Amino acid sequence: MQRTSFGSMQCPIARSLERVGEWWSILILRDALHGLTRFDQFQKSLDIAPNMLARRLQGLVESGLLQRKLYSKHPPRHEYVLTERGRDFRPVLLALLAWGNKHFASEGESVLLANAKTGAVAEPIVVDRKSGRPLNDSEFRYVPGPAASERTRLRLAFAAGEITADDYVPGAVSDKTEKRTRRRTHHG
Amino acid sequence: MQRTSFGSMQCPIARSLERVGEWWSILILRDALHGLTRFDQFQKSLDIAPNMLARRLQGLVESGLLQRKLYSKHPPRHEYVLTERGRDFRPVLLALLAWGNKHFASEGESVLLANAKTGAVAEPIVVDRKSGRPLNDSEFRYVPGPAASERTRLRLAFAAGEITADDYVPGAVSDKTEKRTRRRTHHG
Repeated sequence: MQRTSFGSMQCPIARSLERVGEWWSILILRDALHGLTRFDQFQKSLDIAPNMLARRLQGLVESGLLQRKLYSKHPPRHEYVLTERGRDFRPVLLALLAWGNKHFASEGESVLLANAKTGAVAEPIVVDRKSGRPLNDSEFRYVPGPAASERTRLRLAFAAGEITADDYVPGAVSDKTEKRTRRRTHHG
Repeated sequence: MQRTSFGSMQCPIARSLERVGEWWSILILRDALHGLTRFDQFQKSLDIAPNMLARRLQGLVESGLLQRKLYSKHPPRHEYVLTERGRDFRPVLLALLAWGNKHFASEGESVLLANAKTGAVAEPIVVDRKSGRPLNDSEFRYVPGPAASERTRLRLAFAAGEITADDYVPGAVSDKTEKRTRRRTHHG
């Protein structure tokens, strides 16, 4: 089966996932944001197979999240340094940290974020920069941007409750059509 | 090669990724947060093979992010409804939205978040709930929590600049050992 390219989707979330939507890549970014730069450091930290690590690092370089830099000429040695785009991924990791601590740390938190001076433990939440209002709220909603396609507009109109599921999903399939689709997909 | 279980890692980011660290799962959550609940709705929206969708939905149910509910008895029909844990994933998606719009929307934004009343476009940032200070900042740093293991403590001490890479990564491997490891991993 051919892999869907999310990059061709308009959704900014789908496009982001095309670059990092994979466990290892996200954990490499986590480590890079912790200051790791060298292949052997990532390998030890992640306990990842070298060929897999090399592939992921290369992918992050191609997506412009890491930059490969020569740090020793004899012998030639490279390190992987975060670009601005890579550093800008930090809020995603902070949101994952908060979610993981709330839902998957039954024995207590292992990693927290704290104010470096006061030591006060921080609680990451997502807000609107200008108003400071929490965005996890019915007060805010998704709207089509200037470049939105018809498909994107429909999806958002449905999310906003402006159209019904049947309008959003015009050819809603019955179980029978579903089976036909399944067969086609498997052998296509 | 055996898949590493991230759930056994202490890092809350790694544990979160074990539940959703996969494109489709994250896009299913995006759609669920947009109000989709039915199999055919997800399928149409994501253009995903039914067997793949069924597997991902089942995974999200097992991880406690979605709940499977009967909405019709004759014929039996189920829908997938977000749990609290699933709804709490929203900040991660907002952070991905902001990152995608900044870095992967060269033709202009297709999806934005806006205040429902005023229409003002929001800019999602991650802050500390109590102080309101932006967390994407050198002011905050990772610290070990009450349940942190020795390995986690070392990783964070390195991130904080308290120990060197060699202390954090004790058995830093040479190129030669790297090749041996690669061979072992491939045939192991």
